[in-house]
Amino acid sequence: MNLSAKPAVVLLSGGLDSATCLAICKEQGFKPYAISFRYGQRHAIELTKASAIAKQANVSKHVIINIDLGAMGGSALTDVRMEVPKHESASEIGTDIPITYVPARNTVFLSYALAWAEVLGALDIFIGVNALDYSGYPDCRPEYIAAFETMANLATKAGVLGNQLKIHVPLIHMTKAEIIRLGLSLGVDYSQTLSCYDPSELGVACGNCDSCLLRIRGFEQIGMLDPASSN
Amino acid sequence: MNLSAKPAVVLLSGGLDSATCLAICKEQGFKPYAISFRYGQRHAIELTKASAIAKQANVSKHVIINIDLGAMGGSALTDVRMEVPKHESASEIGTDIPITYVPARNTVFLSYALAWAEVLGALDIFIGVNALDYSGYPDCRPEYIAAFETMANLATKAGVLGNQLKIHVPLIHMTKAEIIRLGLSLGVDYSQTLSCYDPSELGVACGNCDSCLLRIRGFEQIGMLDPASSN
Repeated sequence: MNLSAKPAVVLLSGGLDSATCLAICKEQGFKPYAISFRYGQRHAIELTKASAIAKQANVSKHVIINIDLGAMGGSALTDVRMEVPKHESASEIGTDIPITYVPARNTVFLSYALAWAEVLGALDIFIGVNALDYSGYPDCRPEYIAAFETMANLATKAGVLGNQLKIHVPLIHMTKAEIIRLGLSLGVDYSQTLSCYDPSELGVACGNCDSCLLRIRGFEQIGMLDPASSN
Repeated sequence: MNLSAKPAVVLLSGGLDSATCLAICKEQGFKPYAISFRYGQRHAIELTKASAIAKQANVSKHVIINIDLGAMGGSALTDVRMEVPKHESASEIGTDIPITYVPARNTVFLSYALAWAEVLGALDIFIGVNALDYSGYPDCRPEYIAAFETMANLATKAGVLGNQLKIHVPLIHMTKAEIIRLGLSLGVDYSQTLSCYDPSELGVACGNCDSCLLRIRGFEQIGMLDPASSN
């Protein structure tokens, strides 16, 4: 490890995208601090995956933050009364705002990341959002990320002192296939990742939610079997 | 109560400013939903005050959100190893960023408020930040609030659908004396509020921290005794 490496906060969900994002952060020479969230999600098994990924990547520290978002309701991902939509194929997924949208989720997550960055003296935050595959989520768009970065630089001591905080979104314009190809080249172990919105308690992906279908299609496009599919 | 009133989320700390802000929100005809935060602050007694204020104001709902900010350290308000600075008089308070600054606090708080607003279908958030008395806090400045509002409108379904979410900061350019005068005219019971950064466990203000001194000076300037001073 490069001892003079700059610290960076990386949002780590346990899914394919954030695992790749963490690998990119390391590849760029940063010293990663991983942050995950327990927010009443039905798929809390992903946190076990996040811990395994963080350990494998040898991050400087991994924190899991408990947040109350679930108590507010409003999303199929956190509200057990709502059903996660299932489809036959990824091509059915539209550009409407999906029912699986969690209110202000990335804003809440990035705010915690910003708080930690400030404590660590870090000026770099990595988040694996993707505008192509998830065009229905307003808080995955480049213009949202740019606005958060502007706000963050006005919010913090670092910004006031003239340092520039940057939100890195290396995956934002990549297809799922491109993300997987890059991650494989960086040694990401995708067998450790879980992308399903509605997995079994043991962490078996449902294979029919939007997230599963996008992932399956991504691996198909590069002619590979998903190494997590036998988990 | 006006049954057709629009819902608004109000950040309520239990202090003088947020109690006044809640009264202004009601005065403007909104139906207030109050949100408070338990974030490892030393002065958790303020939450008892917040609950009393919310009840007195007959808010539609009051939620207290547990957040993990304290675990990240970095502020005298949450880190028991750091001492809250004490002064002899308010005139000693400078414009440096104070040690009592909590990393990204207003960003984290406003993010939760935004999430709740989205669930409630509310387009209005009230926060009692003040740029005059607290010029050392970067996230109390008008340019910060404007940037948060811009970001929020890109983050959420409401913004995407063309509705305009507004962050109301009615106190931002007011002096403490002006805030108190306005609050009194709206019937705010300041005996219920606590503004101290370092109160006793029973909620007795220290009288020497920045926040106490600003409050004492505010009441002095309008020729009144602080009704909470005998608490």
